[in-house]
Amino acid sequence: MNIDLSTVRQNIDEIDEQLIRLLAKRFEITHQVGLYKKEHNVPPVDPEREARQLARIEKLAQDAGLSPDFAKAILRLVIDETVANHKRLREQSS
Amino acid sequence: MNIDLSTVRQNIDEIDEQLIRLLAKRFEITHQVGLYKKEHNVPPVDPEREARQLARIEKLAQDAGLSPDFAKAILRLVIDETVANHKRLREQSS
Repeated sequence: MNIDLSTVRQNIDEIDEQLIRLLAKRFEITHQVGLYKKEHNVPPVDPEREARQLARIEKLAQDAGLSPDFAKAILRLVIDETVANHKRLREQSS
Repeated sequence: MNIDLSTVRQNIDEIDEQLIRLLAKRFEITHQVGLYKKEHNVPPVDPEREARQLARIEKLAQDAGLSPDFAKAILRLVIDETVANHKRLREQSS
């Protein structure tokens, strides 16, 4: 088989750019959640919601032909960063 | 401030679904790269390409208001999974 490696790499770089944009959008939304949680004194970690998210991502990954363990590792990193942001937000004086 | 937590969580879940779809697309493309690398006996790991990708993602994250360290951790996970897939592919008899 033959592929044009530079074109393929350009496609990969474009996907990475979209990933970054999506993640930035996600953190904008979760920042609002963090402010809400702070104001209403809701704990940053919600184990039930996390379990539902991880189960959902596992199913979505399977359907998309992606490794479920890999997808869960990505979501774990995203959730951990979100919780860390929410904890920082809570510690700031309002 | 007041937000509708269930609507916000639905928005987050939609972003996660888009993330999974993008990642699945990325691994479809890198699978083609893996087949090419195997056939042409190109090593699975390309440190120079990786360094360029990480530097690029750092810049993209900064521009998007996303933590550069977080973005690099995500890309690290994606690259490690890609390299693991390429190594598996290489070990399979063609």
